[in-house]
Amino acid sequence: MKAGIVGANGYSGVELIRLLLNHPQIKLEMLIAHSTQGMEIQSIYPHLNGIVEKTLEEFDADELAARVDVVFFATPAGVSKDLLPECLKRGLICIDLSGDFRLKNPQDYADWYHKDPAEQVLLNDAVYGLAEINRQQIEGATFISNPGCYPTAALLGLAPVLKNDVIDLQSIIVDGKSGVSGSGKKAALGNLFCEVNESVLAYKLGQHQHTPEIEQMISEISGEKNAITFTTHLIPMTRGLLCTTYANLKKGFSTRELLEHYEKFYEKSPFVRIRPLGTWPATKEVLGSNFCDIGLNVDGRTRRLTIVSVIDNVVKGAAGQAVQNLNIIKGWDEQTGLAFTPIYP
Amino acid sequence: MKAGIVGANGYSGVELIRLLLNHPQIKLEMLIAHSTQGMEIQSIYPHLNGIVEKTLEEFDADELAARVDVVFFATPAGVSKDLLPECLKRGLICIDLSGDFRLKNPQDYADWYHKDPAEQVLLNDAVYGLAEINRQQIEGATFISNPGCYPTAALLGLAPVLKNDVIDLQSIIVDGKSGVSGSGKKAALGNLFCEVNESVLAYKLGQHQHTPEIEQMISEISGEKNAITFTTHLIPMTRGLLCTTYANLKKGFSTRELLEHYEKFYEKSPFVRIRPLGTWPATKEVLGSNFCDIGLNVDGRTRRLTIVSVIDNVVKGAAGQAVQNLNIIKGWDEQTGLAFTPIYP
Amino acid sequence: MKAGIVGANGYSGVELIRLLLNHPQIKLEMLIAHSTQGMEIQSIYPHLNGIVEKTLEEFDADELAARVDVVFFATPAGVSKDLLPECLKRGLICIDLSGDFRLKNPQDYADWYHKDPAEQVLLNDAVYGLAEINRQQIEGATFISNPGCYPTAALLGLAPVLKNDVIDLQSIIVDGKSGVSGSGKKAALGNLFCEVNESVLAYKLGQHQHTPEIEQMISEISGEKNAITFTTHLIPMTRGLLCTTYANLKKGFSTRELLEHYEKFYEKSPFVRIRPLGTWPATKEVLGSNFCDIGLNVDGRTRRLTIVSVIDNVVKGAAGQAVQNLNIIKGWDEQTGLAFTPIYP
Amino acid sequence: MKAGIVGANGYSGVELIRLLLNHPQIKLEMLIAHSTQGMEIQSIYPHLNGIVEKTLEEFDADELAARVDVVFFATPAGVSKDLLPECLKRGLICIDLSGDFRLKNPQDYADWYHKDPAEQVLLNDAVYGLAEINRQQIEGATFISNPGCYPTAALLGLAPVLKNDVIDLQSIIVDGKSGVSGSGKKAALGNLFCEVNESVLAYKLGQHQHTPEIEQMISEISGEKNAITFTTHLIPMTRGLLCTTYANLKKGFSTRELLEHYEKFYEKSPFVRIRPLGTWPATKEVLGSNFCDIGLNVDGRTRRLTIVSVIDNVVKGAAGQAVQNLNIIKGWDEQTGLAFTPIYP
Repeated sequence: MKAGIVGANGYSGVELIRLLLNHPQIKLEMLIAHSTQGMEIQSIYPHLNGIVEKTLEEFDADELAARVDVVFFATPAGVSKDLLPECLKRGLICIDLSGDFRLKNPQDYADWYHKDPAEQVLLNDAVYGLAEINRQQIEGATFISNPGCYPTAALLGLAPVLKNDVIDLQSIIVDGKSGVSGSGKKAALGNLFCEVNESVLAYKLGQHQHTPEIEQMISEISGEKNAITFTTHLIPMTRGLLCTTYANLKKGFSTRELLEHYEKFYEKSPFVRIRPLGTWPATKEVLGSNFCDIGLNVDGRTRRLTIVSVIDNVVKGAAGQAVQNLNIIKGWDEQTGLAFTPIYP
Repeated sequence: MKAGIVGANGYSGVELIRLLLNHPQIKLEMLIAHSTQGMEIQSIYPHLNGIVEKTLEEFDADELAARVDVVFFATPAGVSKDLLPECLKRGLICIDLSGDFRLKNPQDYADWYHKDPAEQVLLNDAVYGLAEINRQQIEGATFISNPGCYPTAALLGLAPVLKNDVIDLQSIIVDGKSGVSGSGKKAALGNLFCEVNESVLAYKLGQHQHTPEIEQMISEISGEKNAITFTTHLIPMTRGLLCTTYANLKKGFSTRELLEHYEKFYEKSPFVRIRPLGTWPATKEVLGSNFCDIGLNVDGRTRRLTIVSVIDNVVKGAAGQAVQNLNIIKGWDEQTGLAFTPIYP
Repeated sequence: MKAGIVGANGYSGVELIRLLLNHPQIKLEMLIAHSTQGMEIQSIYPHLNGIVEKTLEEFDADELAARVDVVFFATPAGVSKDLLPECLKRGLICIDLSGDFRLKNPQDYADWYHKDPAEQVLLNDAVYGLAEINRQQIEGATFISNPGCYPTAALLGLAPVLKNDVIDLQSIIVDGKSGVSGSGKKAALGNLFCEVNESVLAYKLGQHQHTPEIEQMISEISGEKNAITFTTHLIPMTRGLLCTTYANLKKGFSTRELLEHYEKFYEKSPFVRIRPLGTWPATKEVLGSNFCDIGLNVDGRTRRLTIVSVIDNVVKGAAGQAVQNLNIIKGWDEQTGLAFTPIYP
Repeated sequence: MKAGIVGANGYSGVELIRLLLNHPQIKLEMLIAHSTQGMEIQSIYPHLNGIVEKTLEEFDADELAARVDVVFFATPAGVSKDLLPECLKRGLICIDLSGDFRLKNPQDYADWYHKDPAEQVLLNDAVYGLAEINRQQIEGATFISNPGCYPTAALLGLAPVLKNDVIDLQSIIVDGKSGVSGSGKKAALGNLFCEVNESVLAYKLGQHQHTPEIEQMISEISGEKNAITFTTHLIPMTRGLLCTTYANLKKGFSTRELLEHYEKFYEKSPFVRIRPLGTWPATKEVLGSNFCDIGLNVDGRTRRLTIVSVIDNVVKGAAGQAVQNLNIIKGWDEQTGLAFTPIYP
């Protein structure tokens, strides 16, 4: 199977290159990048020297249709909305890593992304690729909207308790912490080493575009519509994302009982690992891998559940989950090409 | 006025040295350190070469009484409990930076520190040195228990809304993020560069010893006893501490109204700075200084207040607040010796 | 005395603000910044909230002449060349932190900076402000060209052995390592956190513009003209600069003998600290201060001298040395306003 | 083929686990660790949860002989010297990652490691596993002494110019920069995050134990015995090692000519990549991979060659090269199990 990547010169794009090179069923055929079109990918990313040496091409739907079977869009918000439909029309499998097709309600996109939304019919067609939750819908699909990094960690942490009145859905607070790669390869002052290093800050309070995405999925799973509080923080590290999620328990479950429930809930999900009682994961423990590791704590004094979930934002939060979705679409083993041991230390 | 530091070879101790050297009313007279007694402080901390060159001495209450007027205890938990009363007896002003005298109920100390508590009478005598809140009690006091780093940031963030039914006190969640210096100069695996760097993790869920300290003070201010949920995270940076604190609003205040309230609440507190609407502080913006910067956000959708408060944990969270307390005790300008501009970048 | 800063919104500019605020003889009067003119400095740098709140102004030589006595130029290469002469004409003391007036030979500037040089007569007038070496020339001067960061560390390390045939001048190699703040506050891809973090790289081999500056001063001190090899490396830290300098000894000096010689050479230089035998400095040990710490090693097997010198590039390598130069110009104690203890840890 | 790892709980050991799990010809059979014997490897290294779950065993040569074919020793200096001969005797392939068998002259080991050396006969038998240089000797060998991290980078950088009078062998200076993982998982003060972060320092000047190893190999390749100057620096990053190596050219080669020579020299070495003219590698560009990337610069003004070589110290500088050596021993493709794309960013 042949693959193309649109937005190959960004961080998610270049990670897709790493993962697809490792995938036994995929041949990496086309690398597309508007701003650096005509350049060699290895001149921009010298770590690829001798591994993949390809010229970055301009987007051309006919050319793509002629040369590849699947297209990954690793583009900034507002781009795939226009380009992806051209590929869909030509019968290509499309996996979008941007936020353009995640929100079913176009007004939500307009409100939170401050851009024009995609057409409703396309939003309806896109399958939300949170692999562990939507596996059945993903099988055989041709159009996947890959989840955001924060929603992936938050929702995998929450999913097992969203039903059956386990928690008070109005009490959910997600406190997210992300490495800097989450904001992409963008020459902005806020991403400079000297601004980020040796510092932690909170940003976009009440305004983060992943908020409606998390809420939409909570509502889909629970069957109930609620707003959450979601805060994001920038951490002086390159990769890694941790969500600390709080919710009031409706019943007096112990940590141990909930851990058992989580183990069972994810027993067929090879990329979710539940941590033993009294331990919680570090982002470093999933670095470079597609894992989502989860630890729990019930505070008996406040009857509140704390969920700690970690991912590598560039892998499970972007490129890795995209490849996982392709594996599911094609009926391949979900771990094909993704069986990386995390890099430690 | 002459000062001595017990535990001068730890990170809080060495920061006290920096601050006291800059203080016009203080002469640094004795540096005491048990494990490195007899060594020169500048051989352990070469940054002090040519600035302060002193031999580390063994603790001796009589010697202290003969040579100094004020003693700072920058010792690990369980040490000042035994040493400090000897200095108090001899009429010295004592400022304890450890947790030994913070909890009024000795059982709380036993439960959370897993050590034998100090005597009740001493716990009663110790004035909790959260300077902005307890100024009146601190004036003229001789025995200060300096707050912990997390409690300082959390409580300064919460104090203005703890009264008058502004928030639901049962809904308080404090999500803390701290740099590694918070765990002191201790050769433990968990503090190694390779373990901490490029990672974020949650630790001590439901077990952090600062929990009862925060709760005790919330209860003192609000007049109501409640448990909070408190989670701590280790951030790959040396200095800096940020608390993101969540609480449900009982009334429909706007962010702007609360910001005005905070400005007023802290108008006589030179070290607390309130951030303008729509902005929140980074820990780097207080680095090396005694400031606590606070930003707010009210999410109208969930009627929840988010408070972001940052400090340099080694300054306002330890040595700086200790010096501030001494200034208040002595009736000196609160900023004496502490008017550092944060180091940026 | 009143001071103005041109380029106040860069990293050297904002550090000048910190240092001048701490200086008892200086009132900070004008902050000038072309690109952010009209903005409040504290809105760009929130760490200055409540400390200095001033509007950034446009450069105007007459205005400066009316309001200040001394002007610091913390501008990128190619700017002060045109602006500074206007201030000189109006009788202001001018201290230039850029490279525009460092090289006496205008062709060198053209060759290494790839820009048009300043006029020869101005280059002749500028006093090279390497304070420890040129003190006499600096006293009473009105026009200082402040040294580059690498030259400061390299030359302070080399100066004591440049005369009397101690080393083979043709054998000098300077291997420099710098934190990222050295490249200023510039939204370039190469300065992004994700590009710099967890990496070290060599850059500008054979092309660094500080090369002719180091050579010019070596030649001035030694009386002999030679080329050196100079390599620079980018280190994943914000502040700090270390030069490891190599030279072949002409005579069989021991490390101990040379250390004594260095101690003597710098005995009247309060900002240079010589490390004891068998120890070498870390950049962290001078962080936030104006110190240059130096350690030595003679390898008896190769008869080669290795000099390790460290500075905080933003202080001694820029703003601090500029203030030190002003102190010398005015005959104030060299340490006035600069007696900072390094921040540790 | 079955493998055992002695010292499986250190950083090189745990990296061997990652690499061997990825190796199609190897089954990881025994994990041995003295200090943590009896514990589960995944409880110490939670990143291995669900990937490899094994109990750490005590060293027992008979047990090893019964269960494995090859043993990797990832032990501190002074350990394999005693244990490895027991495995050799029992016919196992032994690959030692420590320094115990690298120096052919036992007195060198005594002088630089300050420990008792291995027996001369064993030192004679050990094949120095610098794969790119000693391939022929490694083929079919049973006892490999794997090079140190600094020697690997320095020697791969130097090897192409050590013959034919290209450089003056007496002029060689190696300026090494290493991440903190190079000093292993050791709870020492010098490895603490707060001591290392935001700092760079030089250490062990004239005393680093890799000095005689580099000299021995230079002498073996060049046929001439010379001392070098070797300085090491600690960089605030976890993985990565860069050597900047200086040497005087005897003939007037251009950078371009030397680059061609290097290309040719390493044309059959898939893990060595030569950088194009005017570019030099960053350690990040080999992170997680077995590559050694090399860039060159000839300074025409000083007729001096500067070589910049980078590796991931835990891979090519330790575990990766060990696996590469096993591949060569067994006649497998050198890249088997090692075809990792570097992780970027």
